[in-house]
Amino acid sequence: MNKEKLTLIKVGGKIVEEEKSLKILLTDFSQIRGHKVLVHGGGRSATKLAEQLGIETKMINGRRITDEATLKVVTMVYGGLVNKNIVAGLQALSIQALGLTGADLNFMLSEKRKVVDIDYGFAGDVKNVNAGLLAKLIEQDIVPVLAPLTHDGQGHLLNTNADTIAAEAAKALAAYFDVTLIYCFEKKGVLLSESDDDSVIPLLNEPLFHEYVENGIIQGGMIPKLTNAFEAIKAGVKEVIITQASEMHTGTGTRIQ
Amino acid sequence: MNKEKLTLIKVGGKIVEEEKSLKILLTDFSQIRGHKVLVHGGGRSATKLAEQLGIETKMINGRRITDEATLKVVTMVYGGLVNKNIVAGLQALSIQALGLTGADLNFMLSEKRKVVDIDYGFAGDVKNVNAGLLAKLIEQDIVPVLAPLTHDGQGHLLNTNADTIAAEAAKALAAYFDVTLIYCFEKKGVLLSESDDDSVIPLLNEPLFHEYVENGIIQGGMIPKLTNAFEAIKAGVKEVIITQASEMHTGTGTRIQ
Repeated sequence: MNKEKLTLIKVGGKIVEEEKSLKILLTDFSQIRGHKVLVHGGGRSATKLAEQLGIETKMINGRRITDEATLKVVTMVYGGLVNKNIVAGLQALSIQALGLTGADLNFMLSEKRKVVDIDYGFAGDVKNVNAGLLAKLIEQDIVPVLAPLTHDGQGHLLNTNADTIAAEAAKALAAYFDVTLIYCFEKKGVLLSESDDDSVIPLLNEPLFHEYVENGIIQGGMIPKLTNAFEAIKAGVKEVIITQASEMHTGTGTRIQ
Repeated sequence: MNKEKLTLIKVGGKIVEEEKSLKILLTDFSQIRGHKVLVHGGGRSATKLAEQLGIETKMINGRRITDEATLKVVTMVYGGLVNKNIVAGLQALSIQALGLTGADLNFMLSEKRKVVDIDYGFAGDVKNVNAGLLAKLIEQDIVPVLAPLTHDGQGHLLNTNADTIAAEAAKALAAYFDVTLIYCFEKKGVLLSESDDDSVIPLLNEPLFHEYVENGIIQGGMIPKLTNAFEAIKAGVKEVIITQASEMHTGTGTRIQ
């Protein structure tokens, strides 16, 4: 069966949280042809609101410890402020956007992360993605905008990492579409040399990735990002691209296959 | 053409903002048979959050003056906190809920209220309702949960009264369904005597309404509520019921035809 193409873009960082950069981002996104999905973060705004409310932000390994007060904050910021402003911005560009959390349409079910060494609180690990209904909407040219929130099916929202949401959504939608998953971050791609912004590795496969990790060329937060990318490929995603937000519509960056 | 029945419920006040009462409310809502839509408020939580953030809440004629900071607050509270908790709660009852603002699916377009005597700020008066797409979703047994936010089509969200959202949605959906619009408030219905909770007027038509207004039996905030109800009837809504939230699934209250 010849599937239609779907581009799933993950954007995070301050680019989605400032009016001016968001406007440029959404214009770039509007130029991507065919079916598409946008997954966003909002961590800076969540931290800022928490601070204004006197709620302490605790991060471990880049993950937010989500107590009850923090869950309220991320529900307001991710599900409300960031998501709905993106939706309104896309509608202004004549894109039929629909903002969703994992609770909406029961799209993404998760379970509260088990406490091993660290208690992450109301953080959700994805258990099940119901992509069928979403696929139908996408076929009707609706553009889902996914906030990094899931639910446990028992009435509770859970905080879930946006990179994970993007990977899980891409894998589940791969049953219906030829999915390209694009992770936008601050660099032009995965770099051979951290100090040279133009040293983008154009293509990565798994053996090459392991070689670069052993050589210390790829390190830090890029390792889990790429490990997830290869998992997505194994689960049926056609390609994963790591690039700068301003290049999301050009196809440049590091291509993972 | 024989249309299918659709029940559109508007709930507001603290009942949707406290976990325990919300749970009961959602269980009552789940017992309504056939297609349904839930419209919610969230004013108390918005006022509380504004207070915590040091933002002054100004109300004129029961309407919130929505400056930029207040718009952020209501976007977070209505579009995020209240809406997504309702959606998660309904999913736990196996209802295929989908939370929406007027920006999602371009469902409800409004324009910023013109300044005559009072500047209401980012308050939106409804201009156009695109109910076709929503009707299709409802036919697929999806249950929309509508937050009291609209958009101007230029990328801006606007604060819109939940009663108005309910009436406008009901009128637009009347082209596709036999719509019953139920307004839930703290009393069992429109009362003949304010001091007697059991003096519910079972049926109101327009001549009777005018008579009661002239006699001073119906007064205050109930007058615009009922005026809107009669407008909805004239625009094709089959009936409007004013009742207590706990009676939403029983059909009792004041019936307006």
